[in-house]
Amino acid sequence: MRILVQKFGGTSVSDIDRLKMVRGKVCAELDKGYKVLVVLSARSGKTNKLIELAGRWAKKPDPAELDSLLSTGEQASIVLFSMMLKDSGIRAKSLLGWQIPILTDDSFGMARILSISKEYILKAFEDNDVLVVAGFQGVTKDGRITTLGRGGSDTSAVALAAALDSCPCDIYTDVDGVYTTDPNLCSSARKLDRVSYDEMLEMASMGAKVLQIRSVEFSKKYNVPVQVRSTFNDHPGTLVTQEDAMMESVLVSGIAYDRDQARITLCDLPDRPGVSASVFSALAENGIVVDMIVQTASRNGVTDMSFTVPKKSMEDATAIVKPLVDSFGVGIDTATNVAKVSVIGVGMRNHSGVASRTFDALFRENINILMISTSEIKISCLIEEKYVELAVRTLHDTFELDKTAE
Amino acid sequence: MRILVQKFGGTSVSDIDRLKMVRGKVCAELDKGYKVLVVLSARSGKTNKLIELAGRWAKKPDPAELDSLLSTGEQASIVLFSMMLKDSGIRAKSLLGWQIPILTDDSFGMARILSISKEYILKAFEDNDVLVVAGFQGVTKDGRITTLGRGGSDTSAVALAAALDSCPCDIYTDVDGVYTTDPNLCSSARKLDRVSYDEMLEMASMGAKVLQIRSVEFSKKYNVPVQVRSTFNDHPGTLVTQEDAMMESVLVSGIAYDRDQARITLCDLPDRPGVSASVFSALAENGIVVDMIVQTASRNGVTDMSFTVPKKSMEDATAIVKPLVDSFGVGIDTATNVAKVSVIGVGMRNHSGVASRTFDALFRENINILMISTSEIKISCLIEEKYVELAVRTLHDTFELDKTAE
Repeated sequence: MRILVQKFGGTSVSDIDRLKMVRGKVCAELDKGYKVLVVLSARSGKTNKLIELAGRWAKKPDPAELDSLLSTGEQASIVLFSMMLKDSGIRAKSLLGWQIPILTDDSFGMARILSISKEYILKAFEDNDVLVVAGFQGVTKDGRITTLGRGGSDTSAVALAAALDSCPCDIYTDVDGVYTTDPNLCSSARKLDRVSYDEMLEMASMGAKVLQIRSVEFSKKYNVPVQVRSTFNDHPGTLVTQEDAMMESVLVSGIAYDRDQARITLCDLPDRPGVSASVFSALAENGIVVDMIVQTASRNGVTDMSFTVPKKSMEDATAIVKPLVDSFGVGIDTATNVAKVSVIGVGMRNHSGVASRTFDALFRENINILMISTSEIKISCLIEEKYVELAVRTLHDTFELDKTAE
Repeated sequence: MRILVQKFGGTSVSDIDRLKMVRGKVCAELDKGYKVLVVLSARSGKTNKLIELAGRWAKKPDPAELDSLLSTGEQASIVLFSMMLKDSGIRAKSLLGWQIPILTDDSFGMARILSISKEYILKAFEDNDVLVVAGFQGVTKDGRITTLGRGGSDTSAVALAAALDSCPCDIYTDVDGVYTTDPNLCSSARKLDRVSYDEMLEMASMGAKVLQIRSVEFSKKYNVPVQVRSTFNDHPGTLVTQEDAMMESVLVSGIAYDRDQARITLCDLPDRPGVSASVFSALAENGIVVDMIVQTASRNGVTDMSFTVPKKSMEDATAIVKPLVDSFGVGIDTATNVAKVSVIGVGMRNHSGVASRTFDALFRENINILMISTSEIKISCLIEEKYVELAVRTLHDTFELDKTAE
């Protein structure tokens, strides 16, 4: 039995015409001899509507009850699509998270998948050619419904593929695949045929929001071959897969950017143990997500420390840090007109010179670098927001991303 | 542990103000020391909306898939109400049919309850004071969601009470209880304090639609004390219970009527075995519900046979019967301007004279009786529809139903 997982998002199930396109994608794979497991999200906007509804009934909606409410969105999607398939004479069946079951822990609203019954799915495929599974939801061992958090349907799809001996998993989106950078900013952006899990992780975490980050972690862990492709045409998409020799020969795979950055700098901070810990633990306790963190070398026992947070968290973060800063008697400086540009590529692991070429390219365009942070396969620079388009295009040219690797 | 079941219908969960009234009813019973199991329906109109939605996606919606879709209506109700209770500091939890489970057969769309886990419910009450259970739904032993058919939430409530050692079950409606007749037709109609299961069955089946008929059968079978009462005040309602000596001393309990009747008469039918069987099996095969059936004594080898069907089935029924009638070469006569008036009371079992008093009262008002059918505790007369109000008032007076029995 050859099984393929297909995942379709909220815009694909929002009306009948879209769903007919989805049916076409399913039938094409059936014709190739696959059994197809389709994972669907709730209709676009449905989840937000349900959260809003809950807010009208309770000041603090109980998380377990809320998950049971939210799960009805996907339930409607899978039932209606199964009906449509059966109506066309296809042997299909809808499956909710608890019916398989997709077992999760009990972190309601952001549950993690513990196990999926492969046996149940294989048995269900005996009498069916298509199984339509609700994304985003699972069930605890006590039989309470859980949800996996935003974008959880990608994770459901990859986890189901992992449970089915890492069968192929096609994630359908409204774009053709993963690009070297945002085609809206840079007309020479090119679709990648392949990208490694690690590169995809860096891209997903910085605004190239094709795939939900947890789903990429999952696919990496279980080595699930994920293809990102378009609902609206039949072009091959981008295969997200393990690194291979060919990938490593490519220095840089893509340029990502993230406008949702605000910078906070604490000036002349006493350079002694526990100071930065006190700052970041206060932020973490208040649920503020910190992205870049940079600390300069100590001079005369003081140091400057800068970090970035999402723009909407700026005010809260400043208020939280203020009493600490006051107790140290140091200055605080903030900026919201900033953005992050990142150069990503597994090839960096084995090659040097990417950093200097990056800084040099930005310098030549008179773009000042405010902060720098690096990882094994990524170099990120914080710059003034107004230079984002120029920086992306310049770096895309510098690393010749419009050209296919030989 | 003293447990009480409360059931609220679709109008009670349609907005927050109504639900606050429901919360008040729940709290009143908590204060009396009860643990409360609340059964809720879907919001008014929700089920119809979902059926309409399914019809847009499939010409013939698969019944199993449809049940999974319909079950989301009750799911939303119980989750939102549980949230509201928890928000007010009440220990509450929502329960879906499959979570308990409420096991049913696999007749999707009209499933019958097979068993309910009492142990699960008692365990859930250990950590909760209120359990909010979805009405109308169950689950097969294979884990497929089922629904119980129209008005199934009443049945859910009574079945849950039966499973809990026949604990009391209060069915909240928009009326104060069961009346001697329709107060809209007869201003002297009086609320009954008690009514027997059998009387309620006769009333429920003839337009006095306070309780769904299957729920009354269930409550009779398991001897569940059901109270029909109002959501909008605190008056005691009507207790539906076993017959007792006091009830039997009352000759007649109520006058019911049903305008949804159409009459079909087959004239000069050959009086030989198999003729009426062929007529009624043809109707049954086509899903036509037949109510009254009357056949006159045979004269010269021929007989007249009349039966009634719901007005909307009249045309279909005539078309189905036509070929049979033609093959016998007999006449057919129909009327839609008819209605049924019924006198109901367990007291009839031991007393005679009710029939003659009924006929006499109608005769005195010049109301012609078109058909008569009787059961142990009921006398029904088909009359011209225009006389319904007069007939109901006359019979109500005749049997002095405005007066309480001593």
